[in-house]
Amino acid sequence: MDKKIQINHKRFLSDISSFGQIGALSGGGVARLALTDSDRLGRDELVSRMKALGLRVSIDNIGNIFGTRAGRLSSTVMTGSHIDTVLTGGLYDGTYGVLAGLEVIAALNDACIETEHSITVASFTNEEGARFQPDMLGSLVFAGGMSVETARATADKSGITLGDELDRTGYAGAGHGPDHIISYYELHIEQGPVLENENTDIGVVTGVQGISWSRLTFRGRSSHAGTTPMHSRADSGLAAMSLITRLHTALKDIPEQLITCGSFQVLPDLINVVPHITTLTIDLRNPDEQALKTAEKILTELISDTEKAFNISVKKETLARFDPVSFNGKLISQIEKIAHNNGFTARRLCSGAGHDAQMIARIAPAAMIFVPSVNGLSHNIAELTYPDDLCRGTQVLAEAILSDAL
Amino acid sequence: MDKKIQINHKRFLSDISSFGQIGALSGGGVARLALTDSDRLGRDELVSRMKALGLRVSIDNIGNIFGTRAGRLSSTVMTGSHIDTVLTGGLYDGTYGVLAGLEVIAALNDACIETEHSITVASFTNEEGARFQPDMLGSLVFAGGMSVETARATADKSGITLGDELDRTGYAGAGHGPDHIISYYELHIEQGPVLENENTDIGVVTGVQGISWSRLTFRGRSSHAGTTPMHSRADSGLAAMSLITRLHTALKDIPEQLITCGSFQVLPDLINVVPHITTLTIDLRNPDEQALKTAEKILTELISDTEKAFNISVKKETLARFDPVSFNGKLISQIEKIAHNNGFTARRLCSGAGHDAQMIARIAPAAMIFVPSVNGLSHNIAELTYPDDLCRGTQVLAEAILSDAL
Repeated sequence: MDKKIQINHKRFLSDISSFGQIGALSGGGVARLALTDSDRLGRDELVSRMKALGLRVSIDNIGNIFGTRAGRLSSTVMTGSHIDTVLTGGLYDGTYGVLAGLEVIAALNDACIETEHSITVASFTNEEGARFQPDMLGSLVFAGGMSVETARATADKSGITLGDELDRTGYAGAGHGPDHIISYYELHIEQGPVLENENTDIGVVTGVQGISWSRLTFRGRSSHAGTTPMHSRADSGLAAMSLITRLHTALKDIPEQLITCGSFQVLPDLINVVPHITTLTIDLRNPDEQALKTAEKILTELISDTEKAFNISVKKETLARFDPVSFNGKLISQIEKIAHNNGFTARRLCSGAGHDAQMIARIAPAAMIFVPSVNGLSHNIAELTYPDDLCRGTQVLAEAILSDAL
Repeated sequence: MDKKIQINHKRFLSDISSFGQIGALSGGGVARLALTDSDRLGRDELVSRMKALGLRVSIDNIGNIFGTRAGRLSSTVMTGSHIDTVLTGGLYDGTYGVLAGLEVIAALNDACIETEHSITVASFTNEEGARFQPDMLGSLVFAGGMSVETARATADKSGITLGDELDRTGYAGAGHGPDHIISYYELHIEQGPVLENENTDIGVVTGVQGISWSRLTFRGRSSHAGTTPMHSRADSGLAAMSLITRLHTALKDIPEQLITCGSFQVLPDLINVVPHITTLTIDLRNPDEQALKTAEKILTELISDTEKAFNISVKKETLARFDPVSFNGKLISQIEKIAHNNGFTARRLCSGAGHDAQMIARIAPAAMIFVPSVNGLSHNIAELTYPDDLCRGTQVLAEAILSDAL
């Protein structure tokens, strides 16, 4: 028996394209918010494709879908990602990794390869966090990081719970995922510009950077823009803008430090009124835990400075805090070796975004493979990865899985 | 005939208090947005009070209400202000000046004083600009600065036009205001902290500062907060915050310069997305036209700097531009003299806010009298002027009107 695996480019690209019709938006891209009707249609299609490939399908109590190709042993090599998207998402974020897993199965079937270990393709519930928080919810529950009761009680903006939606869509399953995962590979688009900018085929992901999310509420005093002398003001908006500007400067020298103020609101938000309340979010990320802590410390110091300088008060709430995750060294080396053997250029990099793999890393050896994103775009209907890149990544995934499963 | 006028404190304070019941909010303050039902109730009550005092009431085609006490001549000394409020307004902004005018009439009636010139109390439509823009609309139309057709076509946020609301409330009148105004006095709360801070009874208003309102739209590029290196970003929010911070610093040395960024929105306003569009307003005010122009020039230069430094584009729109207004020197001196004759402390100051008086100043000699605002608060349900201050201002108004009308 020939143990070489070769994915079928034409079939794979066609499979991605047809899946993109589910929840398709008129201007391009897709909308499959977790557990909406379009996500349910995506799930139905996925289950149908899994069955057509001869996989045994199991759905757990949080709606994660597992399709397993039996090996001689029940221990399994797992791959996967998610098929839910943001409200105006692309065709590749998540879905690419799931469909690549199915293509690996198809290629194994083509070549009539039997494996020692089983192979499982997983699709996790609510990875995006665009409808229910936290993100990566399905894999977090699967890895034991959150109880299914807590997860089911999570409500969306309109008050509908995730549990109700699981029941409504028929995806509160009675099955469960694999018990013994010997390795987990997740193939994903980069969602950033590094690979494209460096003209590199394959990203060998070493880990996921640490994340520190906080919400700051600045309370000053509302007053008339035309009658209140500058020195009598307690301008919450100006204080907030000054803090963010200073924070960017102060963090410039911390290597690989990212800072984003993505959400910002002033009240009462009128042209001629000094804002009394300003609310904003700060997203700090760093692959190094010590560096991330330093950034957090600087933020705390600047908050204290700002309170004094602007005669306002600042409340800080932590919205999320994840330590950096390191992927498995053996798996990382294997991905790198396979890429080079195929003649692909490859570089190691740390993931800026969160992924299901970081949850699975809690319970099994895990690693990720990235492919380039055009203009680094993601969470955007213009999200694009070129066909050659899609196929290169899937070929690397196939060989990594086969290498572990044989 | 005794030509000395003395206002009745008890009656006047009771009249203010009872008028404050119209549109009263449960937590204090009032809501009488222009041409809503509560504003109509206020108008009905005002007309009723004018008639009870023997005034001839005339309502013009933009809903301005004029109550005239006939003198021997048709030429008139006018006083007035407005009874509309912001959504959560106080009892004094505007209403104080109108009711003080009625108290002057009542005091003249008490003393059986007849005057050479007529005396008119005016209440102008939509001074606040909280429902329909621009503010000071009624007095602007009366002064010939805007056609009644344009004014009637102005729509509120829900698309209802001012014209429709005038018709609905029955305040599209067939009358007109006085033709020959020999002087116009407007009594108003300061809406700022200067008089209170300096423990001064009466503000002698020399003019209204110039106003320059603009809206800035920053366009950058949306990108993922976790995957986009700092140097690859075009962060519209950071660019905007940096501009506002720098502008405050740059304008510090311009005397009496006020700057407010009261409205600020980012898109898509998500914690983990670099904002691609940021919109904000800038309110610049200065009593000196040259200084205001300098501030505007610095803003323009900083916009250009910011576009380059942050790799974004900025569009600037002018929302309003009013030159500083100087009130009539003779009227200013007269107010000051009357205040001192009564033993009141007084100081000259420039108004930070816009007032109907600045529109009337286009067609007649005009001036204003200010009284202290506790904590400088206004456009706020906590707005407060102490009874003694309310009465001092009204006494000065009464004597100024009588002096011109005799």
